[in-house]
Amino acid sequence: MSEQHQPGFGIAIMAAGKGTRLKSKRPKVLHEIGGKPLLLHVLDAALAIVPADAITVIIGHQAETVRSTVEAATRTAGVRFVLQAEQRGTGHALQQVKAAFAGLTPPEHLLVLSGDVPLIRPETIAAIRDFHLAEHAAMTILTAIPPDPTGYGRVVRKSPGSSEALAIVEQKSLAPDQQNLPEINSGIYAFQTASLFSHLDQLDTDNAHGEFYLTDVARLMVDAGERVVAFAADDIDEVLGANTIVEIMHLDAALRLTTAKRLMASGVTIFRPETCVIDATVEVGPDTILEPFVQLLGTTVIGSDCRIRSYSVVQDSILGDRVLLRNGCILDSSTVADDALLGPYAHLRPASHIGKGAHVGNFVETKKATIGEGSKANHLSYIGDAVVGDGVNIGAGVITCNYDGVNKNQTTIGDDVFVGSDSTLVAPLTLGSGSYVAAGSCITEDVPSGSLALGRSRQVTKEGWADRKRDAKLAKDNL
Amino acid sequence: MSEQHQPGFGIAIMAAGKGTRLKSKRPKVLHEIGGKPLLLHVLDAALAIVPADAITVIIGHQAETVRSTVEAATRTAGVRFVLQAEQRGTGHALQQVKAAFAGLTPPEHLLVLSGDVPLIRPETIAAIRDFHLAEHAAMTILTAIPPDPTGYGRVVRKSPGSSEALAIVEQKSLAPDQQNLPEINSGIYAFQTASLFSHLDQLDTDNAHGEFYLTDVARLMVDAGERVVAFAADDIDEVLGANTIVEIMHLDAALRLTTAKRLMASGVTIFRPETCVIDATVEVGPDTILEPFVQLLGTTVIGSDCRIRSYSVVQDSILGDRVLLRNGCILDSSTVADDALLGPYAHLRPASHIGKGAHVGNFVETKKATIGEGSKANHLSYIGDAVVGDGVNIGAGVITCNYDGVNKNQTTIGDDVFVGSDSTLVAPLTLGSGSYVAAGSCITEDVPSGSLALGRSRQVTKEGWADRKRDAKLAKDNL
Amino acid sequence: MSEQHQPGFGIAIMAAGKGTRLKSKRPKVLHEIGGKPLLLHVLDAALAIVPADAITVIIGHQAETVRSTVEAATRTAGVRFVLQAEQRGTGHALQQVKAAFAGLTPPEHLLVLSGDVPLIRPETIAAIRDFHLAEHAAMTILTAIPPDPTGYGRVVRKSPGSSEALAIVEQKSLAPDQQNLPEINSGIYAFQTASLFSHLDQLDTDNAHGEFYLTDVARLMVDAGERVVAFAADDIDEVLGANTIVEIMHLDAALRLTTAKRLMASGVTIFRPETCVIDATVEVGPDTILEPFVQLLGTTVIGSDCRIRSYSVVQDSILGDRVLLRNGCILDSSTVADDALLGPYAHLRPASHIGKGAHVGNFVETKKATIGEGSKANHLSYIGDAVVGDGVNIGAGVITCNYDGVNKNQTTIGDDVFVGSDSTLVAPLTLGSGSYVAAGSCITEDVPSGSLALGRSRQVTKEGWADRKRDAKLAKDNL
Repeated sequence: MSEQHQPGFGIAIMAAGKGTRLKSKRPKVLHEIGGKPLLLHVLDAALAIVPADAITVIIGHQAETVRSTVEAATRTAGVRFVLQAEQRGTGHALQQVKAAFAGLTPPEHLLVLSGDVPLIRPETIAAIRDFHLAEHAAMTILTAIPPDPTGYGRVVRKSPGSSEALAIVEQKSLAPDQQNLPEINSGIYAFQTASLFSHLDQLDTDNAHGEFYLTDVARLMVDAGERVVAFAADDIDEVLGANTIVEIMHLDAALRLTTAKRLMASGVTIFRPETCVIDATVEVGPDTILEPFVQLLGTTVIGSDCRIRSYSVVQDSILGDRVLLRNGCILDSSTVADDALLGPYAHLRPASHIGKGAHVGNFVETKKATIGEGSKANHLSYIGDAVVGDGVNIGAGVITCNYDGVNKNQTTIGDDVFVGSDSTLVAPLTLGSGSYVAAGSCITEDVPSGSLALGRSRQVTKEGWADRKRDAKLAKDNL
Repeated sequence: MSEQHQPGFGIAIMAAGKGTRLKSKRPKVLHEIGGKPLLLHVLDAALAIVPADAITVIIGHQAETVRSTVEAATRTAGVRFVLQAEQRGTGHALQQVKAAFAGLTPPEHLLVLSGDVPLIRPETIAAIRDFHLAEHAAMTILTAIPPDPTGYGRVVRKSPGSSEALAIVEQKSLAPDQQNLPEINSGIYAFQTASLFSHLDQLDTDNAHGEFYLTDVARLMVDAGERVVAFAADDIDEVLGANTIVEIMHLDAALRLTTAKRLMASGVTIFRPETCVIDATVEVGPDTILEPFVQLLGTTVIGSDCRIRSYSVVQDSILGDRVLLRNGCILDSSTVADDALLGPYAHLRPASHIGKGAHVGNFVETKKATIGEGSKANHLSYIGDAVVGDGVNIGAGVITCNYDGVNKNQTTIGDDVFVGSDSTLVAPLTLGSGSYVAAGSCITEDVPSGSLALGRSRQVTKEGWADRKRDAKLAKDNL
Repeated sequence: MSEQHQPGFGIAIMAAGKGTRLKSKRPKVLHEIGGKPLLLHVLDAALAIVPADAITVIIGHQAETVRSTVEAATRTAGVRFVLQAEQRGTGHALQQVKAAFAGLTPPEHLLVLSGDVPLIRPETIAAIRDFHLAEHAAMTILTAIPPDPTGYGRVVRKSPGSSEALAIVEQKSLAPDQQNLPEINSGIYAFQTASLFSHLDQLDTDNAHGEFYLTDVARLMVDAGERVVAFAADDIDEVLGANTIVEIMHLDAALRLTTAKRLMASGVTIFRPETCVIDATVEVGPDTILEPFVQLLGTTVIGSDCRIRSYSVVQDSILGDRVLLRNGCILDSSTVADDALLGPYAHLRPASHIGKGAHVGNFVETKKATIGEGSKANHLSYIGDAVVGDGVNIGAGVITCNYDGVNKNQTTIGDDVFVGSDSTLVAPLTLGSGSYVAAGSCITEDVPSGSLALGRSRQVTKEGWADRKRDAKLAKDNL
């Protein structure tokens, strides 16, 4: 987004509401879609158009939780918060903004967004801004034409096709000849700030909810001879809000399908795209194939010609080219080099780094572990706090004992080491390059390069013992 | 459901049919939706309105299997069964009911339900009953108005808007002026029992299938000057039956979506609700988040503020608040206390009890095991027939050897024990509180509190052995 | 498919295009639906009607990759390839076919299919052939009537209801009175070969794309007084092509839903059929239940009365009757006998053979392994290169050490053996029937029948050690 900020243009985001219909302790704007709170979607769109210090977030319900969520996000340093301690309507929210600017110079124009209308695109914000400025309007209303406008507040234009609007009318206040008005108010507006501020004090609470309605400003401005215009959004989805969890879930599905379509358009094959869960921030190279029920989350970047099999979840990880994730792999904050082969059911915990062409197989867990090029850990192992060289073979059931109850200790395995199955590697430990650990060994001391280490008991066989025991049991059962 | 039973009101449920079009050995009414046979859904709705001894189930095809399924369900003691040995039509089924009441006093009114119309709600049963009684009708037909009535039997009202009906007419018998009748017969009826019984013998098999049709009773009653009325259901879904597996699958999806919507309305977040599999009996607290592809089955109860990640399946288990199930956890008949953290790929088999704040990690299986508060078993372990105290650390790859080929034996681990990785605990065994088991040990004898136990071999290192072996192999390869 | 080949009838399949809009390195016809490249679907339909040597595949973009994919498929020996080195249109493609037949006798009739219209059914190919022959036509155009024909080339019939066609007209060339023509050209044609070949040289590139259009042949033939007819397909889906990955994904979903419906019609219960991934080649017996999110791939055959639980993936495997796969099982090229019970999270790698009533439990991997009747390997084991007898109990965490760094070695376990938990079996190794391996043993030597083998260290307990260590640590922490 290379949009140039227009000086004198600010954005206010409504984020004070409780969202009573959600039946949730969490404030509505912190409910998530696409892996991110509603409010942060709106904020990201705003930040694509104006710098952080041109943005005001109006907080109220659980104000501190909302504020800290915003502050923890990226690029939000400088965002201003205004407290609406009681939530007495949208007009009341803007009254608090006006109060906060007392003694300061507010931006010449102010765009008002809703923190629960998360699919708004920067392009649309820029478009309403440009329309607003070109029209020299006191207020510009973003509108949309849904399949069924019933229930929505309707925008009354001066005449059909005119850009000028006369009022915003609630469903229940529609006159008989207004019942069929198709154009709804999105709740998103641009204002000439001075004009807005001058009318806010005229609002009253003489309505069903006893609230100050920002929508009433339209009529007040028209009555004062000021210019109010309407601008229709291309896409109704973009201005959809959410009042129930069902509606939030619809927005989530819509957002993720948009992401899947973007990736498919760039050459990624996604089988059953409606079943994949892909965050908008994820990047995938062409000719990579995503099977159904795959999840790619956070800052994940995946190369070309990979195949991600079903039920795998990749969070904040980087995969090279031609990587194969078999079914049910879970990756978190890790890297996987070209041509590596994982799973099924490999679990890479944070800071796992899998080398080129390496294999990490079924029921293997890694954590803070580097696995060298072409090395293999294919079965039932735990490799934690370890550096494994190239060409290493780690047998089935091998465990790095990285924790002694007090400290986490490091295991270092050189190139071309063979670690026999079911061995226990008690860290801190170094296995020199080319060394060999016999199967079933417990290794507690460093092994020099090229050496063999054993740590297991000699087998004792008691002939006939099992037969005798079985006979004894049968005898006992016969008592 | 606090409905008061009206004495003199009985319910008969048709459950004798084979369901030939299913191509299945199982009787149609035992096919499942929402994790429960079709018939038991109908029975549960009936039991919400009348006591078990007011219910008659008409069985026929695989009668004993159907009977035993009903008897194994809850609250069904007292349900009466009537055998329809041959299936010669719906009228024939009621003839068997009449015969079964020979010499007994039947209920004054009889509601007839279909065992393959499973979405019928108790509210609707009560509504048709009340309408039937208020109308003093001999027969009340539950009707519905589907988008396309083609193929269904149609209800002919005396005149549009009249509550009185004249007949039920099969699709192929519709007169030219009846082709557009919109109202279909649901197959659900209330009867004045005496009137019903008096007309059953007048039915004949003079029709395409050579069966006795219960629908013909309507015309017989009207001809006899008795009052037949029609009552339209609010919701067409509720009266949908199923004749094919595809149709049964549609009912399953509809039922589960209803459950998901109920939970969302109470504050549960369910991403991709159409992908979750939630039995109608499940309860979930507000602000719990269910990721896509989650399954909550049976008597499962989940607290508030939990997160159940994708591909997890929870059967008949109880979870506290703030529990996190990572991906792919499988729980069966277990309990998990507040703040516990499981998975990914933790498997809790029956009678696992996970304490407050405890961790059970990847590739760990528990069975008949209690894990104390704050204890951890994070990797590749099997904990069976065990009681584990508080603050215990169970290392990676630890196995309780609970079975010696003859008996299952118990392992008891005190508070604050440290069990080193890859240890083998041969039950019966007690590890005293604060004891420490060295990694890689096989422990066969009790360990006193505060003691260290080792059971592993001392390591032997043969310097240069691996190099020599490799050289030898190379030499051999060069032969 | 028992269709009789009509001698003199050949099929040409267009497979030379790049599919630029896919943004993919792979040629369009090698993109997959239903687990198989688009082109092979078309080829299979063709092979159901004519022998391989009556089929010509026109290749161009990545010709060698396409050719080798065809040649690697079954029943394709004898298929002829014609190279269209430059892709200059559909007419140009047929010009290459004509050139390839120079000096040879082409088939009397030639059906032209598109390699990217994969849902075409053999029945439809036979139907257009028969219509073409019965009509004595020079060209027969397969048409379809979609909900919205906008954008498609339209077929102009001589008069409504006439079988004769006058031309195929591109969307943008439609005359005002042709705008509402509902019938579209599918791109599939039958030709009298001599007539086709005689007109190919008359084609020109005087059009928007500068290509030779095969569609222009229709008008040329009509102008020459030859008979061109149109034949409408029953099902629009069948003639849908794909120009984008999104469209290919739609075809994949449509194909798989068709397969799921076929199985449901034969008595298989498939919950959420739209979430299952079932290849068209898979067979499943009646009364088997597939839970949501199951994948059955390749040549898999599943018996009756099985239950395949969610997230399981079965590739090229054969399951008997009454098999239960719990959640998340992965099977590849293996067999499972009646009444066996697998998972959750069992992983059968190729050449695993699970006996009647055997159990393979959670986090167990098998490979080239035979597990005998009633034997159990229930927890955290790796059984590779092994033959396990009947009635064997393999404890938790048992590992067959089949690889010594150089060779893969075999483990043989007799009937009724008990292998204690956490044992390591170092192959090559034989455990005689009825033998018993103590828990935690490393077994390196053969064990005679009826004998006990131990390979573990005696436990040493140091009383008070842990307490002292803890005190020491506390002391240290207090420094």
